[in-house]
Amino acid sequence: MTIADRLSAAGTAGLSTALRKRGYHDVFVDGVRPLEPGMRLAGPARTLRFVPFRPDLFAERGGGLNPQKQAFDTIGPGEVLVIEARGRPEAGTLGDILALRARHRGAAGVVSDGAVRDAQAVAATGLAVFAQGAHPSVLGRRHVPWETGVVIACGGAAVVPGDFVVGDGDGVLIIPAALVGEVLAEAEGDERRDRWIAARVAEGAPIDGLFPMNEAWRARYEADTAV
Amino acid sequence: MTIADRLSAAGTAGLSTALRKRGYHDVFVDGVRPLEPGMRLAGPARTLRFVPFRPDLFAERGGGLNPQKQAFDTIGPGEVLVIEARGRPEAGTLGDILALRARHRGAAGVVSDGAVRDAQAVAATGLAVFAQGAHPSVLGRRHVPWETGVVIACGGAAVVPGDFVVGDGDGVLIIPAALVGEVLAEAEGDERRDRWIAARVAEGAPIDGLFPMNEAWRARYEADTAV
Amino acid sequence: MTIADRLSAAGTAGLSTALRKRGYHDVFVDGVRPLEPGMRLAGPARTLRFVPFRPDLFAERGGGLNPQKQAFDTIGPGEVLVIEARGRPEAGTLGDILALRARHRGAAGVVSDGAVRDAQAVAATGLAVFAQGAHPSVLGRRHVPWETGVVIACGGAAVVPGDFVVGDGDGVLIIPAALVGEVLAEAEGDERRDRWIAARVAEGAPIDGLFPMNEAWRARYEADTAV
Amino acid sequence: MTIADRLSAAGTAGLSTALRKRGYHDVFVDGVRPLEPGMRLAGPARTLRFVPFRPDLFAERGGGLNPQKQAFDTIGPGEVLVIEARGRPEAGTLGDILALRARHRGAAGVVSDGAVRDAQAVAATGLAVFAQGAHPSVLGRRHVPWETGVVIACGGAAVVPGDFVVGDGDGVLIIPAALVGEVLAEAEGDERRDRWIAARVAEGAPIDGLFPMNEAWRARYEADTAV
Amino acid sequence: MTIADRLSAAGTAGLSTALRKRGYHDVFVDGVRPLEPGMRLAGPARTLRFVPFRPDLFAERGGGLNPQKQAFDTIGPGEVLVIEARGRPEAGTLGDILALRARHRGAAGVVSDGAVRDAQAVAATGLAVFAQGAHPSVLGRRHVPWETGVVIACGGAAVVPGDFVVGDGDGVLIIPAALVGEVLAEAEGDERRDRWIAARVAEGAPIDGLFPMNEAWRARYEADTAV
Amino acid sequence: MTIADRLSAAGTAGLSTALRKRGYHDVFVDGVRPLEPGMRLAGPARTLRFVPFRPDLFAERGGGLNPQKQAFDTIGPGEVLVIEARGRPEAGTLGDILALRARHRGAAGVVSDGAVRDAQAVAATGLAVFAQGAHPSVLGRRHVPWETGVVIACGGAAVVPGDFVVGDGDGVLIIPAALVGEVLAEAEGDERRDRWIAARVAEGAPIDGLFPMNEAWRARYEADTAV
Repeated sequence: MTIADRLSAAGTAGLSTALRKRGYHDVFVDGVRPLEPGMRLAGPARTLRFVPFRPDLFAERGGGLNPQKQAFDTIGPGEVLVIEARGRPEAGTLGDILALRARHRGAAGVVSDGAVRDAQAVAATGLAVFAQGAHPSVLGRRHVPWETGVVIACGGAAVVPGDFVVGDGDGVLIIPAALVGEVLAEAEGDERRDRWIAARVAEGAPIDGLFPMNEAWRARYEADTAV
Repeated sequence: MTIADRLSAAGTAGLSTALRKRGYHDVFVDGVRPLEPGMRLAGPARTLRFVPFRPDLFAERGGGLNPQKQAFDTIGPGEVLVIEARGRPEAGTLGDILALRARHRGAAGVVSDGAVRDAQAVAATGLAVFAQGAHPSVLGRRHVPWETGVVIACGGAAVVPGDFVVGDGDGVLIIPAALVGEVLAEAEGDERRDRWIAARVAEGAPIDGLFPMNEAWRARYEADTAV
Repeated sequence: MTIADRLSAAGTAGLSTALRKRGYHDVFVDGVRPLEPGMRLAGPARTLRFVPFRPDLFAERGGGLNPQKQAFDTIGPGEVLVIEARGRPEAGTLGDILALRARHRGAAGVVSDGAVRDAQAVAATGLAVFAQGAHPSVLGRRHVPWETGVVIACGGAAVVPGDFVVGDGDGVLIIPAALVGEVLAEAEGDERRDRWIAARVAEGAPIDGLFPMNEAWRARYEADTAV
Repeated sequence: MTIADRLSAAGTAGLSTALRKRGYHDVFVDGVRPLEPGMRLAGPARTLRFVPFRPDLFAERGGGLNPQKQAFDTIGPGEVLVIEARGRPEAGTLGDILALRARHRGAAGVVSDGAVRDAQAVAATGLAVFAQGAHPSVLGRRHVPWETGVVIACGGAAVVPGDFVVGDGDGVLIIPAALVGEVLAEAEGDERRDRWIAARVAEGAPIDGLFPMNEAWRARYEADTAV
Repeated sequence: MTIADRLSAAGTAGLSTALRKRGYHDVFVDGVRPLEPGMRLAGPARTLRFVPFRPDLFAERGGGLNPQKQAFDTIGPGEVLVIEARGRPEAGTLGDILALRARHRGAAGVVSDGAVRDAQAVAATGLAVFAQGAHPSVLGRRHVPWETGVVIACGGAAVVPGDFVVGDGDGVLIIPAALVGEVLAEAEGDERRDRWIAARVAEGAPIDGLFPMNEAWRARYEADTAV
Repeated sequence: MTIADRLSAAGTAGLSTALRKRGYHDVFVDGVRPLEPGMRLAGPARTLRFVPFRPDLFAERGGGLNPQKQAFDTIGPGEVLVIEARGRPEAGTLGDILALRARHRGAAGVVSDGAVRDAQAVAATGLAVFAQGAHPSVLGRRHVPWETGVVIACGGAAVVPGDFVVGDGDGVLIIPAALVGEVLAEAEGDERRDRWIAARVAEGAPIDGLFPMNEAWRARYEADTAV
């Protein structure tokens, strides 16, 4: 399995616990949800920053192959494009043509704290997209696509190009690149243990003493899972 | 195809761009979503204005065949009832009996910036409804149904009786009656072009030069789509 | 049918009208929705109160078999656990292991005005859960699980242990235990009448005179429904 | 003293209690405050309704002696102009020239759930104004001044032309015209009693038994205040 | 100087930094401000918890010498009453008679994340009050005064009876009783240093090297402040 | 008079109208207010961008002479420092030492869409500061001071270094540098006319025909103001 597959399998819940133990508390992209239930994504971040609409700035960078279109046109396989749209729900930040292009280039997905335009067509491309919601308006209602490749804010989290982004039914999480290895290993261990605990609970075991495990349960767990 | 069918096919995204070019920026009913995924509506607006609940005003206009019930009882085939509920999510503004009646009269749908009561039963009628959400309460918790046929505010947009209302997966859009013809024609043209561009992107063409089209692509587009 | 089954069949819309007539206006758990469309619950309330996170308080009551875990470990068949999480969406208040345990003990469901962690796994347990949404974070990001069995606030409603909780597609309603009998009877009567009215509307009858019923319709209704 | 003077002296706190006893709970203009600390107003309401900005509607009613300017130009002595601006803080709804005119005509004040433009100049006119705050923008950023003399919503309260409006340090209250007499009489009685209680508390009397009064205190109160 | 005087002199800014170093990040009562500019308070907390209004619960605990009135009637010299009102701005949580009583008993002040009724009269008592704002309504519009002496949530902070509460122009801070000594000592040291730095900046020294201090500046600081 | 003095005298209300005529609608820093009533500022913008707190990023750029401290240490006479704090009210973005430094260097003021720490001490420096409010916390609670000299977003407006910033009792306005001359000239002309109209209204003239001016009034105005 690739790192991305393992991150996706581990899930945002377990990964966030491992980050929390290392002092990373505000690593969640708040306010976004998958365009369709069940969507998941994981991969390294590319970043795109929008600034508030202003006629002179839009004239400078809004037209032609603007930074937004460049970002979609050049995104690499397995990458996740993360868009800073200042949490504004009332303008689109991507549409179906750009989603198709990202899909064609093998992108892992898009995260935007703004809205999606032509949301049904975007969903139909099969690209995993997490956003605030849908809105019919073009981005120029609120934004100028300003620059790519810088540190951005998205849904309250800082995102550095190259950070890992993981999204699932619980939300979207940002993992600093330097921490991916240790955080993933820890989350996988925790997940194995929690699945074992869940199996015991499904069999009728009480929570008391089992979650968290006391010594007796831990011994049984270690016996069960020893190779 | 009727105007309504064409508007629905064109979709809110493209229509809003054509309105934007004419200086119409705040024509979106913000904060509403379809009661069930995939619902769409298009048609001329009938309007209904609620004012905040007050015992004396409710005594005057809340009971019997009040303005809300009159509006549902007399809505015409293909019309869309738009309700001003001041964006309050905590009270119903229509229920299943009224939805059934609107359905029976052939209404194209309902848009309310308040909530729907008995939402599952309303959805089961098949009527297209866009609202803030669902709430168990009767309208009297927050509203008096005050009058019909006046200019209202719904989700931040002004709505004049006879305006066209279009709703789909991106949201709800209000089109002044006088602009429907030109806006629709332009949106259909844009949509044709964007579908063609999307097909090229699906084939692997880059965005650069294609979206927006440079002269070479435009020539090819015109050749392709010439009759 | 049990009381819980009858409450669930009556639905929150009708029950809230009967409560309203008795002066109970603010009995709605605002801001929550079912984890999956179609979920319903009804049963007597158990309560759990969280307070804002603070290191010393978490050290005192956050670990081991804390009040949250105790509550899930001891919930009884048919009961609904209601959690006061001060409406904060940015931390989980239950996860899949606890949901499994509640399911195993026969709980009717959980209502939390905070978030659910591992929401897909929670939904997979089949437990009916109504909450603000999903979030990957553990509860310690915002909460200390403080105590059980006290009067709490949840989504703007006071909840007394033993109150009846009813949740469906419209939301969640709290019914004081002492009122369940009369409120249920009245709601069932109203529901019977409204179903009959809906049938007439489906046949093409106008609202005028029928909803609310005039004397003629009432006579026909009484004739139709007389045993 | 005039009715307006007596209402102003009674204050919104006491008057709202008397309204509450009569079933009037949502009679507060929420979200507004006086332009300067200490401002008070009382008088019968004139109403003005704005609808969301749209180019065609603004062309129809935004220019010349529009409904807003008419309202200020014709307001009568002692009247209070109440403006429905849908609670939007980001556009002015009156400025200093209109405030001067209202002041010159003897208006008792203005209540707007939108913003004030040129707020310092407006305050300098001496007119009592309660609003959401200040904003430099003209009203056309968000509004079309649509009509006068209709029932409106302002800050969550319904306002009928002729209702009494009272504003002080606690906020703004709407009193239906038909209730002014009885509500005022009751509030004045309560205020007299509360002032007497406050004097006892200032002397060191405990709350217990005094607030609310038991029989002993009531007897003393009646003796003290008997003519 | 008493502990309270020293806490008040140290101020919430410096004290919060010392708490932050010990892992206490969410100790702020968000959303409150002093009733009048310049108000300050410091002292040990008494707590009062309100729950949402419900007729049966209000009948049980709303009348006579209810928990709210008991709390004001028995508050001790130097104490601060902290009220959990769930951040609701639309109902009073204390009025002038209760404020007078607290003032007479020597209370250091009141903190409420709800509103103040009769705010001008409350301010006139001279009691230091920090709240969301002012509102004319009695507490029964939203609350039942439920209990005293328990751990509460106020403005996002947990408050334990006996914690120290400090309020000034920056806001209100909660200090766990066990930490007051060390936090105060550290804040006083920091404040001394920052005053010295401010004096240098006022003389024209650049920030660079001085704030934070490099070795040269630190040596000069130590020389200056040595006894 | 300098350009800054003339901008300050013209005021944000008049200047925003001139910008609006040129298609600049979203040039307001929403949500900020002066630290003390009556504060005004005008001058060219320096910019400072904060990103959300994260331990690794704070370790990289939070300590020593970080970008925030550099910005304050090097701000020039007459300049306005504008800080992007993503509108978060719950952490300080400047304190009294930095304010003193800016004051010493002759800065015209600071605009931050975050909070001010040690607000009373900051106000005491005499520096004009517009912000969301006050908060005791250091910036590290929510921010990493990331970079200076880039285009930022502040309160919903794009700010380019060198834009003119004007703040007064109505709020804060951003004027693109290239437009300052024409916008200022137009605003001064409008202001002259409006002062003349206000004088007529103060004398008792009705609004009708005067505001806006009909031909008769315009003739009189031109006669009056001819040199």
